[in-house]
Amino acid sequence: MSEYHPLSLEEAVALARTIPDHFRQDAELSVEEIGDGNLNLVFRITDSTKGKGLIIKQALPYAKVVGESWPLSLDRARIEREALEIQHSHVPDLVPAIYAYDNELAITVMEDLSDHTIMRKGLIEGQEYPHFAKHIGRFIASTLFYTSDLGMDQQAKKEQLGRFINPDLCKITEDLIFEDPYRDSPNNNFSEDIRPDAEALWHDDELRLEIALLREKFLTHAEALLHGDLHTGSIFATRESTKVIDPEFAYYGPMGFDIGAVIANLLLNFAAQPGWSSNSEELHARRLRLLTMAQGVWKHFETHFRDLWNRDLVDVMAKTPGYQDMYVQKVLRDAIGFAGAKMIRRIVGLSHVADIDTIPGAELQHQAKLTALKIGKALVKRGRFASSIDEITGIARQAAKEEEVSI
Amino acid sequence: MSEYHPLSLEEAVALARTIPDHFRQDAELSVEEIGDGNLNLVFRITDSTKGKGLIIKQALPYAKVVGESWPLSLDRARIEREALEIQHSHVPDLVPAIYAYDNELAITVMEDLSDHTIMRKGLIEGQEYPHFAKHIGRFIASTLFYTSDLGMDQQAKKEQLGRFINPDLCKITEDLIFEDPYRDSPNNNFSEDIRPDAEALWHDDELRLEIALLREKFLTHAEALLHGDLHTGSIFATRESTKVIDPEFAYYGPMGFDIGAVIANLLLNFAAQPGWSSNSEELHARRLRLLTMAQGVWKHFETHFRDLWNRDLVDVMAKTPGYQDMYVQKVLRDAIGFAGAKMIRRIVGLSHVADIDTIPGAELQHQAKLTALKIGKALVKRGRFASSIDEITGIARQAAKEEEVSI
Repeated sequence: MSEYHPLSLEEAVALARTIPDHFRQDAELSVEEIGDGNLNLVFRITDSTKGKGLIIKQALPYAKVVGESWPLSLDRARIEREALEIQHSHVPDLVPAIYAYDNELAITVMEDLSDHTIMRKGLIEGQEYPHFAKHIGRFIASTLFYTSDLGMDQQAKKEQLGRFINPDLCKITEDLIFEDPYRDSPNNNFSEDIRPDAEALWHDDELRLEIALLREKFLTHAEALLHGDLHTGSIFATRESTKVIDPEFAYYGPMGFDIGAVIANLLLNFAAQPGWSSNSEELHARRLRLLTMAQGVWKHFETHFRDLWNRDLVDVMAKTPGYQDMYVQKVLRDAIGFAGAKMIRRIVGLSHVADIDTIPGAELQHQAKLTALKIGKALVKRGRFASSIDEITGIARQAAKEEEVSI
Repeated sequence: MSEYHPLSLEEAVALARTIPDHFRQDAELSVEEIGDGNLNLVFRITDSTKGKGLIIKQALPYAKVVGESWPLSLDRARIEREALEIQHSHVPDLVPAIYAYDNELAITVMEDLSDHTIMRKGLIEGQEYPHFAKHIGRFIASTLFYTSDLGMDQQAKKEQLGRFINPDLCKITEDLIFEDPYRDSPNNNFSEDIRPDAEALWHDDELRLEIALLREKFLTHAEALLHGDLHTGSIFATRESTKVIDPEFAYYGPMGFDIGAVIANLLLNFAAQPGWSSNSEELHARRLRLLTMAQGVWKHFETHFRDLWNRDLVDVMAKTPGYQDMYVQKVLRDAIGFAGAKMIRRIVGLSHVADIDTIPGAELQHQAKLTALKIGKALVKRGRFASSIDEITGIARQAAKEEEVSI
């Protein structure tokens, strides 16, 4: 069974039974394939009497979003699993446990998180996540610090970097985030009502220069082992718990990229609630909450990152007075720029977010896209010169004030 | 014979005879081991009647400079050979040809360059190299551009980067250049007469902050396949010809590092000729020549690099107006900072340069060290804010003016 082929439901169940200390031998197991279907099969196998389950994730050798014509290396299953293991070693409460894997079949068997909800869905439904900023700030700070030259042996880091050379998945990021939205690319995907705004991106050289610089950072700055795709669809959450999944885009890149991804997706949900100036108190409160979360993500990251630095720094030269402040400022600036790039691409690029695409009503949806684009562009242009996370919330508030909808 | 062991002279000759189309079967071959003996054996095998030869370079599994106690990976022989092959493919006239190799024995068989002289020796003897700046500018521009995200497929670049993970040799650079000189390290090696100046480095936080930033660039900025050790002892030259050898430190790092290495070594030779304000016209002319060369290295690099960019750029976003200028400025700034770091380490760090250590007379040698340190410190502090290569020559001229020797 070790030669690669997509698992059948029956094979998934058979594999689940081989996992030690999980299901009773005579357990009646049910199985469903629950993948969103872009890049992977995801089987959930459940002992219906016990309510106990596990997940089998299997990489497909192509991206389904464009048919079988976009081949992807199966080695990404190994990359994802090794990234999960490293992340789990640093923040075990924030990452699913791994039970088994098979590199040949591109399979990872892991903890079932059915009691959690994909956070994007929760946010769309107005769910509150009072601990999220603290959790994700710690996740990002710990996983980045301890995989960087600051927190691990610098020779071991080089060897580890070699295990996360991830060209196929990086190319998706490089094309869809740092290129296509800024030219007339067939990969772009935007509604006709925002065509003038999309086309304006292709000719905004101030913006394109900043994107070129962010792209360069993504291509060359091997600072830490990134999650690489840390949007709210890669996070399982309850009110009390946060679990980060799906690090198949993991590779050594600039720290700000992961932070920017989280902030961008909170601000996309912010943009998806047009009507800031309306009289809806609930809407107002929800938007305030999202801004506080976005700020909180940075603040908890920074606090935790500085704590780790002061406690576990391995680099003698990095103790030089002033260096930590400069480093943190660099990460902040990168995060703001990357956040903007990630917002823009979700409006005009290939892959959108449900936060905006599920808004009922063309006018509201149109306004949400304009607001997201406005925030995204402002963040990209501000990033390199920013000095405080408050600049992000200021930009979002300003864009909201300028909205022209009534609800 | 394929299990690793250091070759005997007889084995070297036997190996040389197996190289196709080189020596006649009945040729009488002589052999000598000519390595400087730090990290490698170097055999020259010559057909004395024909004057035709070849070089066998074999990596040793340790650094001899500190006995057998500093182990080094033999994989660096593969890294060196693959780097030579890549460099040769871009600038065949500036790199020796490779005839054969054996990864198991850590051996590369290559062109004999006995008609050339190690450039450091030539410079010490006052030799002129009127084409050097043009040659090395082209070497650096071509080898860096075509191995970077600017000039090669960006996914292939990631795979190539994976073949040049070079922890052992990078550690030498990280320790000896970016750490030891800035603290009381047992690896340091300076004469007692400059102890106050060496110790001042340990407490100069402005300088140490810039070194920490340069160190970070070296650790994380995977811009291009560097030579990694491009000093004048890694260059064979005649008046007309330049050949770059010994890229065993090759790895993906910041472009400015290679440029800075060349400039640093020209300025070390400059510092080794104290008496700028004297009446010696020859000395004056020699120093002027070195400054012109240092400037020329950058100018030829920049011209050639911009030409390649305008002709062979693969990155769409890098065409954005203004980006090329920003990129070149970044490389200039890095080069100036790295040049300074490389000068400082040759005065107070483990490994010195003959340019200075062979100066006859304690007073002149002392002055040369002070001048080199002064230039090095100024370059490191200036780098991040520089806008022109002329700032380098300005700093060198100023340091020379302040010399207190008479000759």
